[in-house]
Amino acid sequence: MKTSHKPRVVVIGAGFAGVEAAKKLGKQGVNVLLVDRHNYHTFVPMLYQVATAILYPHQIIYPLRRLFRRLPTVNILQADVKQVDFHNQIIYGENLTINYDYLIIATGSISQYLGVTGAPENSFPIRTLTDAIALRNQILSCFEQAAKVTDEDEKTRLLTFVIVGGGATGVELAGSLNELIQCAFKQDYPSLNRDKGQVILLQSGEQLFSSYPQQLSKYTEKWLRHHGVKVHLNSKVSKVTAEAVYLEDETAIFTDTVIWTAGVLAGIPEIRQSVKTAKKNKIIVEETLQVCQHQNVYGVGDVCYVDRQQESFNGVAQEAIQQGKTAADNILRQMRGESPKPFNYVNKGRLAIIGKHAGVGKIGKFTIKGFIAWFVWLEVHLVYLPGISNRLGVFSNWLKYYFFGEGAWRVIISRVKK
Amino acid sequence: MKTSHKPRVVVIGAGFAGVEAAKKLGKQGVNVLLVDRHNYHTFVPMLYQVATAILYPHQIIYPLRRLFRRLPTVNILQADVKQVDFHNQIIYGENLTINYDYLIIATGSISQYLGVTGAPENSFPIRTLTDAIALRNQILSCFEQAAKVTDEDEKTRLLTFVIVGGGATGVELAGSLNELIQCAFKQDYPSLNRDKGQVILLQSGEQLFSSYPQQLSKYTEKWLRHHGVKVHLNSKVSKVTAEAVYLEDETAIFTDTVIWTAGVLAGIPEIRQSVKTAKKNKIIVEETLQVCQHQNVYGVGDVCYVDRQQESFNGVAQEAIQQGKTAADNILRQMRGESPKPFNYVNKGRLAIIGKHAGVGKIGKFTIKGFIAWFVWLEVHLVYLPGISNRLGVFSNWLKYYFFGEGAWRVIISRVKK
Repeated sequence: MKTSHKPRVVVIGAGFAGVEAAKKLGKQGVNVLLVDRHNYHTFVPMLYQVATAILYPHQIIYPLRRLFRRLPTVNILQADVKQVDFHNQIIYGENLTINYDYLIIATGSISQYLGVTGAPENSFPIRTLTDAIALRNQILSCFEQAAKVTDEDEKTRLLTFVIVGGGATGVELAGSLNELIQCAFKQDYPSLNRDKGQVILLQSGEQLFSSYPQQLSKYTEKWLRHHGVKVHLNSKVSKVTAEAVYLEDETAIFTDTVIWTAGVLAGIPEIRQSVKTAKKNKIIVEETLQVCQHQNVYGVGDVCYVDRQQESFNGVAQEAIQQGKTAADNILRQMRGESPKPFNYVNKGRLAIIGKHAGVGKIGKFTIKGFIAWFVWLEVHLVYLPGISNRLGVFSNWLKYYFFGEGAWRVIISRVKK
Repeated sequence: MKTSHKPRVVVIGAGFAGVEAAKKLGKQGVNVLLVDRHNYHTFVPMLYQVATAILYPHQIIYPLRRLFRRLPTVNILQADVKQVDFHNQIIYGENLTINYDYLIIATGSISQYLGVTGAPENSFPIRTLTDAIALRNQILSCFEQAAKVTDEDEKTRLLTFVIVGGGATGVELAGSLNELIQCAFKQDYPSLNRDKGQVILLQSGEQLFSSYPQQLSKYTEKWLRHHGVKVHLNSKVSKVTAEAVYLEDETAIFTDTVIWTAGVLAGIPEIRQSVKTAKKNKIIVEETLQVCQHQNVYGVGDVCYVDRQQESFNGVAQEAIQQGKTAADNILRQMRGESPKPFNYVNKGRLAIIGKHAGVGKIGKFTIKGFIAWFVWLEVHLVYLPGISNRLGVFSNWLKYYFFGEGAWRVIISRVKK
């Protein structure tokens, strides 16, 4: 593939930031190549609902080629980008060499296991759609196994689910998994006792949702405890094995399922030149989102750390979307010979769901909690989810789930061969 | 697990025959244990629509625990049965020993590769849901790869799909895959030329659909050819490699995707005693469906060959359902001290779909073809598909597919780790 006379913008990563940038540029007729390892976009905030069999996998994704069908200057390439050369303006993949004039790095984040022995091999991440499907299969397989075994210790181990990390993903998953246990045992596994199934949420710090006001953290903690989730604060994990998780105080919790939501690292491809990075391996970008000293390269979303901005970012979709938009705008400005403008984040608020009819949120200076936050969460996510058929499907599954305790089929569609 | 005083019927396999038998027995309050390696029932006749991205995987399955929720004497066990001991009336699985009073073997069929070198390793079967998902991923990955490569030979190989076997599955898949290529190239891969994509259907005999009247076979052949499928009759495969399929006349067809629909074998667990088998390794059963010399063991569906009956069976759902019903009836008779009755097959007719708005069928002495057969096929399958939400979902996908050429998302949700 060769660069045409018209400048080509390559966008690596089709998450919130990458898709937004490609859309904006495509609408202006700019020649864009969007590269992702999958041929679909994933609506990450609802992954946990796939893992807990509320939704079907296809309902939270959208095919990239369909998403950009009406923007003919945007091309899609399914590939894994291995290396980037800023100097020669080339990205490399397997049997793949692509030139660019402008580059947007929007490769998101990967799990960070914080040096905990055994964590990468023995715990389940929940960052991609296939992670969510694997986790659903694991949880349901534990139920099926538990319905078979007679040994009480084994049954307890199978029905103990440990979630590491008390951020939004950890909390949302804890509430949802706890509900799954309740509904599934009652409806599908009459031989299993509700009390046998337990969800343990381990948080290293002294409050859940560290980025929320303390009042909301307290509310969340109380709500989860009241509904049967075992919340352990100040609990640092020291080791994970195939059958247990160990805390720093030497406590062992026997379990077949450890879910890791604790840490993230920027997921950057190898870069031939040296770039300045901040904590979590994030690329330091200027206020314009340009990578320092490489004015035709932008870093957006979870991969970047914006220098000189007071606000700290939390890796939520809104930040990524707005950064994607800014990067596209700035490239358009550069193409016109103007200079890029600094990124300006408009915080529309944050929301998290805890469980059935309960959520927490912070919109501007106002905090909301309980039913209203739950309701707003559902509505906002339905509106942002791409695709009418996805929205209809999710809405219908939510109705089924909230009224009858059954969203998606609780089936184990396991390992696809080949 | 121990046998209670109430006699226990163990049913191995939750296909059409096994599910029907378990239902019938459960409705009479009989103690049933239904064992399957999956925790769901698969509506096999529509697998090819999952493989060609018309339907979503979950739309053609139904969770077993949900299916039997209202029949409390039917218990479900997800396990792989390894061995059966007729003498001691025990079935064995991994860490599993289960006693039975009556046994129904309904384990269906597996692919038979007819001794063709390389076929098991290098071809895609389409017998289970995971097979269908793997095949969809393969087909779509070939499209994605082809959109990337510049070498014309490689592109041709990627876009050549060879189907071995001209029975119902082979024909239905050929028509559907041909349509997928048309729709997907037009909508998603504007850089790929329609003529590059080809579907080749290899049939060893001299007509497609060998069990249908010749007139329908001819119609099917003509229809497929007219729509661009390359039908090769009298073509026996001698070898399959990772990059080609070889015919007995030494012709080589270069392809990355060989789909095997040619032969079946009965998929029976190991039996400690010797049993009489017929062709395709089927267990010979008496007219009552009892296994010869083992009056408390029944063989139903694809695993059995009914002795002394004139009619030859084709492995369609109707046969399995009716046999499941008869086996259950006969067990109920045995429990009451009566003697079992012979199986009597009521042939309700057969139908196959070829492509958009075309099908063939034989109902009683009448043959139907074209639009009417296509329409009846859709209706019959919609009625037989278990679950209202599945029916609604499938109906909606069919509308989308037949009006807009897009049923399910054309996404590659590949290998689920762990």
